Amino acid sequence: MTMTTIPGGGVTTPKGYVAGACYVGVKSHKSDKPDVAVLCSQYPATCAALFTTNKFCAAPVILGREILKKGKARAFVINSGNANAATGQQGVEDARRIQRAAEAAMGLGEDEVFVCSTGVIGQRLPVDKIVAGMEQIVPQLRDDKGSEAAWAIMTTDTVRKEVALEVQLSGGTIRMGAMAKGSGMIHPNMATMLAYITTDAGVEASVAQGMLKSSADKSFNMTTVDGDTSTNDSVFLVANGASGVKVESQADQEIFAAALDQVCIHLARAIASDGEGATHLMVVEAKGLPTLKDARLVARSIAGSNLFKAAVFGRDANWGRIMTAAGYSGADLDPSHADCALQSTAGRVVVMEDGKCTDYSEEFATQILTEHDVTIQVDFHSGDGEATAYGCDLTYEYVRINGDYRT
Amino acid sequence: MTMTTIPGGGVTTPKGYVAGACYVGVKSHKSDKPDVAVLCSQYPATCAALFTTNKFCAAPVILGREILKKGKARAFVINSGNANAATGQQGVEDARRIQRAAEAAMGLGEDEVFVCSTGVIGQRLPVDKIVAGMEQIVPQLRDDKGSEAAWAIMTTDTVRKEVALEVQLSGGTIRMGAMAKGSGMIHPNMATMLAYITTDAGVEASVAQGMLKSSADKSFNMTTVDGDTSTNDSVFLVANGASGVKVESQADQEIFAAALDQVCIHLARAIASDGEGATHLMVVEAKGLPTLKDARLVARSIAGSNLFKAAVFGRDANWGRIMTAAGYSGADLDPSHADCALQSTAGRVVVMEDGKCTDYSEEFATQILTEHDVTIQVDFHSGDGEATAYGCDLTYEYVRINGDYRT
Repeated sequence: MTMTTIPGGGVTTPKGYVAGACYVGVKSHKSDKPDVAVLCSQYPATCAALFTTNKFCAAPVILGREILKKGKARAFVINSGNANAATGQQGVEDARRIQRAAEAAMGLGEDEVFVCSTGVIGQRLPVDKIVAGMEQIVPQLRDDKGSEAAWAIMTTDTVRKEVALEVQLSGGTIRMGAMAKGSGMIHPNMATMLAYITTDAGVEASVAQGMLKSSADKSFNMTTVDGDTSTNDSVFLVANGASGVKVESQADQEIFAAALDQVCIHLARAIASDGEGATHLMVVEAKGLPTLKDARLVARSIAGSNLFKAAVFGRDANWGRIMTAAGYSGADLDPSHADCALQSTAGRVVVMEDGKCTDYSEEFATQILTEHDVTIQVDFHSGDGEATAYGCDLTYEYVRINGDYRT
Repeated sequence: MTMTTIPGGGVTTPKGYVAGACYVGVKSHKSDKPDVAVLCSQYPATCAALFTTNKFCAAPVILGREILKKGKARAFVINSGNANAATGQQGVEDARRIQRAAEAAMGLGEDEVFVCSTGVIGQRLPVDKIVAGMEQIVPQLRDDKGSEAAWAIMTTDTVRKEVALEVQLSGGTIRMGAMAKGSGMIHPNMATMLAYITTDAGVEASVAQGMLKSSADKSFNMTTVDGDTSTNDSVFLVANGASGVKVESQADQEIFAAALDQVCIHLARAIASDGEGATHLMVVEAKGLPTLKDARLVARSIAGSNLFKAAVFGRDANWGRIMTAAGYSGADLDPSHADCALQSTAGRVVVMEDGKCTDYSEEFATQILTEHDVTIQVDFHSGDGEATAYGCDLTYEYVRINGDYRT
């Protein structure tokens, strides 16, 4: 299996995708940062999508579910700064108007465009500004503007989240590219952010949908920043077949699924690492649980524990909080023979072994936790279930950002 | 139904209860605050208890479950500063040794004493110090030292949590008293802290157990500080019948249950209000849900949302986060006709009506959120299910306390 990361690659790296972005003023204050992005496959494509499980879902999600059913969508209009959530029927009509304007501007058919929004809840979208933006963006869509689109969709994100892979299948080489936005309101339960994955492979829509769900369960759904599942979470996979290579055989499907896993996990890590106020990426590896479900519960519970997240911020190897979070996760577990270790580029320390505290050096443990990326490993020695979750620490900055988000 | 609060009352207000406390040095640094408390009924009593659902439960909980089965316990030794959790079989033996020493010192029979611990996880209890403390405390047990015991069990709590009621039953007057400790690692799922409720009424053990569970479900299990369910949570109800009044008839049982609800809700509010770093008590009232279960899910989800908690800290009437938290609560709900209001002694503002944002004054909303106690009201107009949850805001101080708890 050959799979290579393409340096600097992103959502327009696969063949036949163009993107663009501009500032239209979704939020009133003037900014250099673009706030509307367009991403488009130049060829007809299949698409798969997953949407938030939040019952208080945003207008673009309501509309997106309808568009997905038609199965023809291959382009996106995405705005940051306003979530178009809690906007009722008016919000759905607003999204629809933007969709129709984008379809017209790009010369696409009905329901070939998804509309996505992220930002503040409860305010009406400035539809006219976004529609006017189409005339600016669409004529300048290019295949080297994926990164500009990745910038435009950011809210409190501090870095762009992009990745691209080149993958060898039996019929030839295909590419997969992606971008995402994360930051706040990030918690497992469908993807909890916006993510766009493009490929120039040809993939049946139903196969794509299944693979996307499976990859999301290992990546986005294992990611938490603050335990809050957003109203707008959406993940999309568009496959336009522009490479001339189809994903058909079982072997190719497995390779493609592995590539999709890699892309989704890359984005999930990037989202957790850039969580609001984060100073640490926490990777939690749980193993030795009776089932995969138990392992996922344990890993997510530890990654989501406010108390342990605050301890990581304080560089305190407070393993009692790790085991406490495992204990209330709902997983079937017996802690009496558990092991627990902390690891980073500074080293690895076993803090608990066979259910008991070891005689570890607190100083060394603190040194390990001084690194940005830290891995927490727990092993319950009672089965083959294993899973990894992605989170970040809880910091003063998280409180500052969210105590003063709208003003 | 006559039920009166007894000013300054606590756990030794009901007849036949004595308490005492002293400093023995559970934690090494010297302090004026007592760290071991003893509470005892002078008469045989029935008892009911609820323990943490955390699978990684502490030694005193393991032992406590055994003691509860015997049904004879009427006294408690409680230490703060060390949770005796993650201490394996040694921890259970340590708790047992303290129990036997306390029973001997008080002249009680086997398994008449519960041992409880709260504090740091993963360190062995200084058993000798606590056993030696028995000789200091037991000879000086008095019926006016309930408040000293309530002080001794505090950890990062900033105020004592005590309450007492006088209740008229058909056979005469009875009293109910209580104390609790809360602060951190506070999240619904059995009581999530330590609480001790005494009464001089006579109550059958099985009746007491049922009433305690019912009251806990309305109070402690509706309380959250940080979403972390502790390893040591325990709530006890001891009934010694010293008033000569028995709770037997259906009518008396209802009055007694209402009094128990009032006591538990008082403690739950006190715990939420004094949550680690809290500057606000958040009371979340959810109504108009299809079932009680749905209403509880919604109320707890809102009270537990990091994003909304940070907004309350920032005095930001960010109702989008309220509705988002309702949306991901798992409750059966339709937000399209929901109302949402914020209330405090400064006034009441409706921020959402019939599913849509109202034209409210942000300035007035901020003024309402400036008060310490704020109530959040949501109504989904789709049933009779209603519930109240108790929480607190997420502050810099929470991060500070928990980024630097052990050092």
